[in-house]
Amino acid sequence: MAKLKKHKHKKHSFKLPKPGSSPGVVFIDENSLIPHINLYTYNENYYEVKQLENLEGLREQLVDAEYNYWIEIKGFNSFNMFETLNTDWGINKLVLEDITRTYQRPQYEVYNSHDFAVSRMLFIDEENVLQNEQLSFILTSNVLITFQDKYEDCLDAVRNRLEGGKGNIRIGGSSYLMYALMDLIIDEYFSVLGIWSEELDNIEDRLFEKPDRTIMFDTQAIKRNLITLRRVTWPERDKMNDILRTESKFITETTKVYLRDAYDHCVQTIDMVESLKEISASNIDMYLSIISNRMNEIMKVLTIISSIFIPLTFIAGIYGMNFSREDPVTGKVLPQNMPELYQEHGYLYTMIVMGLIAVLQVIYFWRKGWFK
Amino acid sequence: MAKLKKHKHKKHSFKLPKPGSSPGVVFIDENSLIPHINLYTYNENYYEVKQLENLEGLREQLVDAEYNYWIEIKGFNSFNMFETLNTDWGINKLVLEDITRTYQRPQYEVYNSHDFAVSRMLFIDEENVLQNEQLSFILTSNVLITFQDKYEDCLDAVRNRLEGGKGNIRIGGSSYLMYALMDLIIDEYFSVLGIWSEELDNIEDRLFEKPDRTIMFDTQAIKRNLITLRRVTWPERDKMNDILRTESKFITETTKVYLRDAYDHCVQTIDMVESLKEISASNIDMYLSIISNRMNEIMKVLTIISSIFIPLTFIAGIYGMNFSREDPVTGKVLPQNMPELYQEHGYLYTMIVMGLIAVLQVIYFWRKGWFK
Amino acid sequence: MAKLKKHKHKKHSFKLPKPGSSPGVVFIDENSLIPHINLYTYNENYYEVKQLENLEGLREQLVDAEYNYWIEIKGFNSFNMFETLNTDWGINKLVLEDITRTYQRPQYEVYNSHDFAVSRMLFIDEENVLQNEQLSFILTSNVLITFQDKYEDCLDAVRNRLEGGKGNIRIGGSSYLMYALMDLIIDEYFSVLGIWSEELDNIEDRLFEKPDRTIMFDTQAIKRNLITLRRVTWPERDKMNDILRTESKFITETTKVYLRDAYDHCVQTIDMVESLKEISASNIDMYLSIISNRMNEIMKVLTIISSIFIPLTFIAGIYGMNFSREDPVTGKVLPQNMPELYQEHGYLYTMIVMGLIAVLQVIYFWRKGWFK
Amino acid sequence: MAKLKKHKHKKHSFKLPKPGSSPGVVFIDENSLIPHINLYTYNENYYEVKQLENLEGLREQLVDAEYNYWIEIKGFNSFNMFETLNTDWGINKLVLEDITRTYQRPQYEVYNSHDFAVSRMLFIDEENVLQNEQLSFILTSNVLITFQDKYEDCLDAVRNRLEGGKGNIRIGGSSYLMYALMDLIIDEYFSVLGIWSEELDNIEDRLFEKPDRTIMFDTQAIKRNLITLRRVTWPERDKMNDILRTESKFITETTKVYLRDAYDHCVQTIDMVESLKEISASNIDMYLSIISNRMNEIMKVLTIISSIFIPLTFIAGIYGMNFSREDPVTGKVLPQNMPELYQEHGYLYTMIVMGLIAVLQVIYFWRKGWFK
Amino acid sequence: MAKLKKHKHKKHSFKLPKPGSSPGVVFIDENSLIPHINLYTYNENYYEVKQLENLEGLREQLVDAEYNYWIEIKGFNSFNMFETLNTDWGINKLVLEDITRTYQRPQYEVYNSHDFAVSRMLFIDEENVLQNEQLSFILTSNVLITFQDKYEDCLDAVRNRLEGGKGNIRIGGSSYLMYALMDLIIDEYFSVLGIWSEELDNIEDRLFEKPDRTIMFDTQAIKRNLITLRRVTWPERDKMNDILRTESKFITETTKVYLRDAYDHCVQTIDMVESLKEISASNIDMYLSIISNRMNEIMKVLTIISSIFIPLTFIAGIYGMNFSREDPVTGKVLPQNMPELYQEHGYLYTMIVMGLIAVLQVIYFWRKGWFK
Repeated sequence: MAKLKKHKHKKHSFKLPKPGSSPGVVFIDENSLIPHINLYTYNENYYEVKQLENLEGLREQLVDAEYNYWIEIKGFNSFNMFETLNTDWGINKLVLEDITRTYQRPQYEVYNSHDFAVSRMLFIDEENVLQNEQLSFILTSNVLITFQDKYEDCLDAVRNRLEGGKGNIRIGGSSYLMYALMDLIIDEYFSVLGIWSEELDNIEDRLFEKPDRTIMFDTQAIKRNLITLRRVTWPERDKMNDILRTESKFITETTKVYLRDAYDHCVQTIDMVESLKEISASNIDMYLSIISNRMNEIMKVLTIISSIFIPLTFIAGIYGMNFSREDPVTGKVLPQNMPELYQEHGYLYTMIVMGLIAVLQVIYFWRKGWFK
Repeated sequence: MAKLKKHKHKKHSFKLPKPGSSPGVVFIDENSLIPHINLYTYNENYYEVKQLENLEGLREQLVDAEYNYWIEIKGFNSFNMFETLNTDWGINKLVLEDITRTYQRPQYEVYNSHDFAVSRMLFIDEENVLQNEQLSFILTSNVLITFQDKYEDCLDAVRNRLEGGKGNIRIGGSSYLMYALMDLIIDEYFSVLGIWSEELDNIEDRLFEKPDRTIMFDTQAIKRNLITLRRVTWPERDKMNDILRTESKFITETTKVYLRDAYDHCVQTIDMVESLKEISASNIDMYLSIISNRMNEIMKVLTIISSIFIPLTFIAGIYGMNFSREDPVTGKVLPQNMPELYQEHGYLYTMIVMGLIAVLQVIYFWRKGWFK
Repeated sequence: MAKLKKHKHKKHSFKLPKPGSSPGVVFIDENSLIPHINLYTYNENYYEVKQLENLEGLREQLVDAEYNYWIEIKGFNSFNMFETLNTDWGINKLVLEDITRTYQRPQYEVYNSHDFAVSRMLFIDEENVLQNEQLSFILTSNVLITFQDKYEDCLDAVRNRLEGGKGNIRIGGSSYLMYALMDLIIDEYFSVLGIWSEELDNIEDRLFEKPDRTIMFDTQAIKRNLITLRRVTWPERDKMNDILRTESKFITETTKVYLRDAYDHCVQTIDMVESLKEISASNIDMYLSIISNRMNEIMKVLTIISSIFIPLTFIAGIYGMNFSREDPVTGKVLPQNMPELYQEHGYLYTMIVMGLIAVLQVIYFWRKGWFK
Repeated sequence: MAKLKKHKHKKHSFKLPKPGSSPGVVFIDENSLIPHINLYTYNENYYEVKQLENLEGLREQLVDAEYNYWIEIKGFNSFNMFETLNTDWGINKLVLEDITRTYQRPQYEVYNSHDFAVSRMLFIDEENVLQNEQLSFILTSNVLITFQDKYEDCLDAVRNRLEGGKGNIRIGGSSYLMYALMDLIIDEYFSVLGIWSEELDNIEDRLFEKPDRTIMFDTQAIKRNLITLRRVTWPERDKMNDILRTESKFITETTKVYLRDAYDHCVQTIDMVESLKEISASNIDMYLSIISNRMNEIMKVLTIISSIFIPLTFIAGIYGMNFSREDPVTGKVLPQNMPELYQEHGYLYTMIVMGLIAVLQVIYFWRKGWFK
Repeated sequence: MAKLKKHKHKKHSFKLPKPGSSPGVVFIDENSLIPHINLYTYNENYYEVKQLENLEGLREQLVDAEYNYWIEIKGFNSFNMFETLNTDWGINKLVLEDITRTYQRPQYEVYNSHDFAVSRMLFIDEENVLQNEQLSFILTSNVLITFQDKYEDCLDAVRNRLEGGKGNIRIGGSSYLMYALMDLIIDEYFSVLGIWSEELDNIEDRLFEKPDRTIMFDTQAIKRNLITLRRVTWPERDKMNDILRTESKFITETTKVYLRDAYDHCVQTIDMVESLKEISASNIDMYLSIISNRMNEIMKVLTIISSIFIPLTFIAGIYGMNFSREDPVTGKVLPQNMPELYQEHGYLYTMIVMGLIAVLQVIYFWRKGWFK
């Protein structure tokens, strides 16, 4: 349970636009982080990372066709930076707004000088909290720029592969790098789903063994997470489809083969989300039926004990009545009053009658199957 | 709760047509407001607002291509005004009927001399009541006419931007102004959704902490509001799509770029509405399981106490019976009657037996897990 | 409630074909009504209604292009009439069968010499019963024939407009008259929906104030009516769509503009039906949660009272036992037996203990929140 | 109920292929019936039925273009027969397998020398059991062959019309005969639906009058039947649509007009199935709410009686305690012990107090509305 | 139940890729099995099976157009083997990865030198456990390679037919063999569905006869299995559709006729899965209503017994009170105290009153229908 609570969705995480603000205005608030900018320069045989202060004058430097470049921007707290992106790189202001308003759905758009894409990273960070971050891509022929508003992410695997230089990653060009990042993000959905699937299995086991009320809360927590993931995966699939069907000058045919593979993964994620949703609904049904069953059992105990002893107590009560045999004041004898009390075996007979009543009731309940 | 009740949907807010009334007849009833007409004249460097008495002769004045004009009409109680719109501006009578029957779905239609569009404003007014108003647009090349049947609305942000003159608003033309208003209205959906989302989060917290019956009523209130919003957002999306795919001579390509952005926002709204609906359904499930669980607990208390004390009371009842040892009248000794009562430690033994029964039952219930 | 019961759907209202009967055979049974035939002759300046005995020879009379004609047929009990329609008017036998088997879905079909359409009238008649009648249309260039199997209908508003001569109705031609009737029927859906919507609102109010079991029955009655209406509105929308997309020589372009309007109304009806269905489902959920809650409350009362008094009664039972201090027969003193009874303040102490137990339990239940 | 149980779906009625058996192999098992073969020779003026032993040499005889032929095959237990169909008539082995594996969905396929179609007969036989049989059609220009694996069916109406010679049936050609059979089968769906609809209405009446547990079982039985019918009607509609859209040389244009009519009937069936499913779901909801309500009432009776009498019994218990006024052994007077017992009007006062408590509780429950 | 538990889905059976691993890398872990490779060489008159050590040099040997070849690979634990497949056979690395990551959805892809397809085998193995294995196909003009990661499968029927040489299997070419395997797998879905259908029928019978809590668990187990199967059958249908609509040079027209048949089977599977899901949902509803009903019955027993005896016990309690007729200390007579006790027939009258109360209550409950 402790673990689950941490996974709980963060509330109010949307930076909603103030209604009526001008469109195309970069969104930076007091919580925005100072940008960390890394420039990766690489080709098949070369790899270098540089930390940059800002983007000024960078455009002109990155024309050497021998290299591919990855500009990684983490944190948005610099109007100048976005100004440069608009003027030097020709990136539309609406695009820059979408980059900084980090509640976009996954999407893909083609512009003259670049492609624009958005992915959403869902991953469990080091403190075991589910993060839902936006990663935006600007892709030109040999440069990929990525944007994220937090320093933390789930992309180290690609950075390592880039440094290690194995596989296609250094020779596939910028579009392959974009694919690698998108694919990694989709793989992360799988690992998150794996965790939830395991938790649902645990919940199912608990249903069999020890169904207490935390089951409901835990299942609901997973269900809400699934709702979140579903809101990401469906548009992610549409995005992948858009990329595959769009003629873009920046995405190579080779990359498209890989992207088709990523598309298949995404469809599998959707399958899994839908199945897990059904399973969690099914667990809740199960839990409710268990509660009802338990209620039945509680009621059976109460009913059996009450039904047996209440009539017996009544009989005892009768012979506890003080109807007198003679008027204590006048001394007159009242022979009809409770002669049983003065019968020789009255007590014994009464006990036998009581025993019989109890036995008959036990038999009755037994045959009704209430002892099973 | 107090807050929520105010958000409750207003009932019977539809002005339904009387069945069989002629089509194309402007609808004005006794509650219609006197029209307030504002004429905004603006271009990049100029801005002026004038209040008008009526629309007569206005058409001819608004031909100066240097300016854009926004005619804002609030309140419909003037047949003359609509007559003028029909004769001077060539607006179809069916369109005028749709403008005045303010229960239209969002829609977009292209006519020869103008485009016609409908948006629905959902906003929470100053008295904290959810309003659902219709805003109708007539768009020509340099004039935008908007229609609303109440004085109050949620459009001040655009008016301020128009006065302030920042951004595209004064240079984008009339279609950009229409876009700005539509986008503002969609942004308002977000803020309303934000409030409901927060309330659903609060409800979820209350489910954990103090689940009382107001939860059900509060969740239902939000659900009904979501049903209302959903009825608005789906056709709103279709409308946006219609605008984007229709060749209209009054909507510029630049505006279309922005409209695509608004379309994306609208799709996000739909995503959010659907998610919130799922969450509210999920909260109701949760609540019902909590009620059932609580019932179980109540029954456990009753059953434990009854099951322990009812048999004990029965035993006490037995020894409260008055079976006599000698017939009070004849004086004959009846030795079989209740010898336990005259045993030296009878009382003590009885108390011990009772104690044992109680302890055994407690153990039984303990092992059934009823004390957890 | 009384009102609702009357709205209850009529059962077995379908005149199903006997399996295996030949297709294209007019269906007339013993309950069919004698046909009432009205001939409306009208143009912009002229209006006349004549009652006819039969249709014989009528075809040749109605060729005057100056006039439009509306033949209104109520009641089908005349094989001759349908024979005439088949021979003189060239109406397909399958069409005539569809006209007389009044359980058709709304539909629209184009034939060489005429168009054929079906609408379904749902209205609440004078005795407050919901009627579901079929109105069939045969449309030629200047003649509209309508068929209904009952005398009562909801079309007086159009008849009055035709007599009054206001609006387009006399100048729009036969297709406009057909539109006017169809539009009136859709408007009737709105008024019926308005009544149900109001009743659902009332039910919701009763849920807050006085939730009794009639709520369930009333909601179900509305739900069944909604199911009926839904079965009508979806094909009605398809029909409208068919009319708008089909090239028919009998429907003018002007009429199509109006039909588009009617189509929009129809879509709004569907929206409303779906919303009301959701609201009624939501009311049922609500009601079930209220029942459960009430059960909880009943159980709380029982449990509090039982838990407090059953143990106390047990204590009283103990001191009601007759364990003796001396053997009444032998006179031997048994000092261990119930010395409490002979303590100076035994009774007082017992009462204090009982009071304490009661107070502790009240505190326990209070802290559990059972008194709220 | 008795009637319903008979309608209950037959279990395991599917003859599933043994996994891995060769495709295109006719399926005949020990339960297959000896084939009964009827040859109907007919045209407008001629009608003759002959019983045949086998199909050998038949192909060459049926070339006379003046007549139409209907070969009716009931029972499949003859490999020779299928061999002849394969060799003489050129019917694909896969088609023959589909004919003999009688669990096919409704379908329609065009081959060079013939068309192949499957309908499913759902009808209630003479012993009141719901049958689900397959009827397969082979259609050539003037010959229709039908296949069914049982002798019993629901096609007598068409046989009678063919013998009677009324209507189109003798002059419409083989495709019209196929239509007539298909239409009859769809009409049978209507009559079956009519019965279920009536039963659902009865169930609804019982819900109002006498809701016992058989309601649940009866509703479930109908629901399962509806699931079965739904599995038939949706592909039936697709089949009809296929026939209408496919260019087949064996189906005349006239027949297509009639088939369109049958298509409409099929859509109506689907409408009705879906509505009845909703109504049965709604009945179940209703029933569950009635159970809950009844539980509430039972609990109210228990709670009222227990709450009133348990405290009173406690009071009676108090004054049944035997606290003594003097020590029976020492004779010491203990004046504090239960002085109420010796008050002059102690009994009267006690009874009054008890009465008051009872009255107060009754008022309390009354105001809670528990007596309604 | 025992049987069902074994069918329970195996948990965590997915070998998920480690996020961020390079794409196109064959996946082999420590649990992978040593490959068993069989080479089937066959034509109409010839059949031979050879066990191979590895695939080296095989490509060149398999060019004889007279024969068809089936290379069956079970177990993946050999990097060399996949290397050979990549270099000699030109199979894409992404395809090889999909083959080894055995959690793919059914799919079909066309490459230059071969087609690639995936089926999923769902079958119940010898130990009665439900297996969900992947079977991958590489198809060239005369060679079929199949891949599976376990030694056990459900394909013996095809192997036997191949050895037996009956039917099309030896003359249909490699694509027919692929079809035969795919069709066998779909047939296996039917047999698995048949088992579950039978179990659901048993559960329904138990619902009537002896509804205990295992019903819920058993139904849930089947439901989860159905969710699994559904995740397989929908993409399987899409795959079949892809194959039918794709122009592939390796799939003959004759095979396509058979594949259409397999497609139909697949659609039938989906129908059946959906129906069984509805039936299992319906069984759960049923079960819940039965629990509720049983609860009602338990409560009725409790309420009847308590309501009858609690008031009677109270009356007995009254006459068990010790209100005295004379002060034991002062000896003063208190005539008002409990004169009933000294009435001549007091006891008798009391018993009669008690009897009357009991009878009245029994009548009351009887008329409420609680004894039924």
